[in-house]
Amino acid sequence: MPEFRQDWATKEWVIIATERAKRPEDFKQSAETRKPLPPNEPDCPFCLGNEDRTPPSVFSLEDDGGWALRVVPNKFAALQPDLTTMRKKEGKFLRVDGFGVAEVLIETPLHNVSPALMSHKAVEKILIGYRSRYHALATNSDISLITIFRNHGPKAGTSLEHPHSQIIATPIVPPHVRDQITKAMLSCDTYGRCIYCDVITEEIRQQARVVAETDHFLLITPFASRYPFEMRIYPKRHSCNFGGITDQEIVDLSAMLKQALYKFYLGLGNPDYNYIIRSGPTDDIDVKHFHWYIELLPKLTTPAGFELGTGIFINVALPEGCARYLRELPLSE
Amino acid sequence: MPEFRQDWATKEWVIIATERAKRPEDFKQSAETRKPLPPNEPDCPFCLGNEDRTPPSVFSLEDDGGWALRVVPNKFAALQPDLTTMRKKEGKFLRVDGFGVAEVLIETPLHNVSPALMSHKAVEKILIGYRSRYHALATNSDISLITIFRNHGPKAGTSLEHPHSQIIATPIVPPHVRDQITKAMLSCDTYGRCIYCDVITEEIRQQARVVAETDHFLLITPFASRYPFEMRIYPKRHSCNFGGITDQEIVDLSAMLKQALYKFYLGLGNPDYNYIIRSGPTDDIDVKHFHWYIELLPKLTTPAGFELGTGIFINVALPEGCARYLRELPLSE
Repeated sequence: MPEFRQDWATKEWVIIATERAKRPEDFKQSAETRKPLPPNEPDCPFCLGNEDRTPPSVFSLEDDGGWALRVVPNKFAALQPDLTTMRKKEGKFLRVDGFGVAEVLIETPLHNVSPALMSHKAVEKILIGYRSRYHALATNSDISLITIFRNHGPKAGTSLEHPHSQIIATPIVPPHVRDQITKAMLSCDTYGRCIYCDVITEEIRQQARVVAETDHFLLITPFASRYPFEMRIYPKRHSCNFGGITDQEIVDLSAMLKQALYKFYLGLGNPDYNYIIRSGPTDDIDVKHFHWYIELLPKLTTPAGFELGTGIFINVALPEGCARYLRELPLSE
Repeated sequence: MPEFRQDWATKEWVIIATERAKRPEDFKQSAETRKPLPPNEPDCPFCLGNEDRTPPSVFSLEDDGGWALRVVPNKFAALQPDLTTMRKKEGKFLRVDGFGVAEVLIETPLHNVSPALMSHKAVEKILIGYRSRYHALATNSDISLITIFRNHGPKAGTSLEHPHSQIIATPIVPPHVRDQITKAMLSCDTYGRCIYCDVITEEIRQQARVVAETDHFLLITPFASRYPFEMRIYPKRHSCNFGGITDQEIVDLSAMLKQALYKFYLGLGNPDYNYIIRSGPTDDIDVKHFHWYIELLPKLTTPAGFELGTGIFINVALPEGCARYLRELPLSE
């Protein structure tokens, strides 16, 4: 029997369509869908030796004898830092110059080592890079929101194979983000507690959708998952803003993020995916009502007109079944 | 220079990324991307002669000697009509049985005649079918929202080639829909007018994004288009609910919808697309604050982590350039 499920925090609904449900293992792609990559690709602007093909680094971390990670301004930036944030009118409509900062975090000099197959230490470097750029960009008072995300594969919206993440800092908190925060704030005004903290407590109590848990983080397939094998990583400590992550939490998260991506890699056959760090606005340093988290979204199905029109996603896999399948996969070393 | 643009009604922002902008004609796919289809496919459950492979029709229209269009219950329905709408608890989380109605409108007995290439009269039959089912489903007091949409091609979420639309009636008005209506209502409370009526007046005044205009409808590429070649059809007469469309408006709309889809077909090389009729809830028969419309969304680009995380779409084509390109295409007969 199909059922509607509500996301407790956002109040959005999904349909878990058990009539169409597939078994978790049916989502696994064969290994041939992605061709093996060489460790170095002479034409790749992000590969070792091609550093002059990108703008100079704004941040980097070194390894024995070379760079381990670089952050560079996005050469094909959708936003530019030398513009104003003044609202202008086009007749009755509102427009603003495309002020903002768009950066690329090149995760490794190697063309073929995705985070799923990196060491914990290498993933830790990525998170240190995220935090460092978050702090640097947040000092600009014209910046209101910093979005850190990773697109893996063409279905996730990237054609660049070289392992990389992106950081986009905008002067605007859009309704899509603000409405979610407002809902959490109203809930907090009523109940006096962060609703995401309550979600974490309830998911731990129910256990059915817990994939992994560490001292500082929880990995689940959400109760109202929109996509098959959607996962979330919640920090157990209440914190509204990714910029507040501690050194110890970074070590812990690097292990969990790596294992989560390895589970995608092993259990689903290296699927295309996005992950997004959902942080509160930069001004919200220490608010009680919002809680940052990471969304991990494998691209195994295609949203259609119904999803686009209603925001109700039809999910053909049971989140509890996905959690069990992911939980039972062997860990990477 | 890139710019942010705001949707006047929803307040959502897009980025028009002119640095990455492509020329309109660069989006056209070569004709080979889609293989030609036969007029009849023996294995297709929607083809003439295979009527016993679907549940019996709940609505049909006849042509000389046979059916021209059939509406049947969706055999693989994500929702079922024989359930309740009672809210239940799963611990602290909310769930509801998957009550609802899911139907398929088979647009023609022919396997290979998409609406872009149909006669106006045949498209008129489709719209008559939509309205008839809208009215029938709206009489069920447990139904709150009726979503009518068309998925064309795999990138739009369908693998079924036979020309068809879908109708899904839900007992829930989800936040994605309700929030948009609430924003329009607050605007109407302030200004005393429907904001969509004002958008229509302003788009007609500016003209830059008008693709076509008839007595009753306006076809535009919206000011804050999220996707290249996104189009909207607005009824010029204020009406919150698709169910209220008149016979005369259906004749007018069938010509406009057919021409809009023919413009996709001709100008973009038969791309995958979704269209969705965005109607108010069934209870809103005659409210002043909302206005139904049709969204037409060709799948030419892939939303990535930034879009998923912020709801801000990066659009690499200028809406005014898209409108000009579409406007200047020759009309179908």
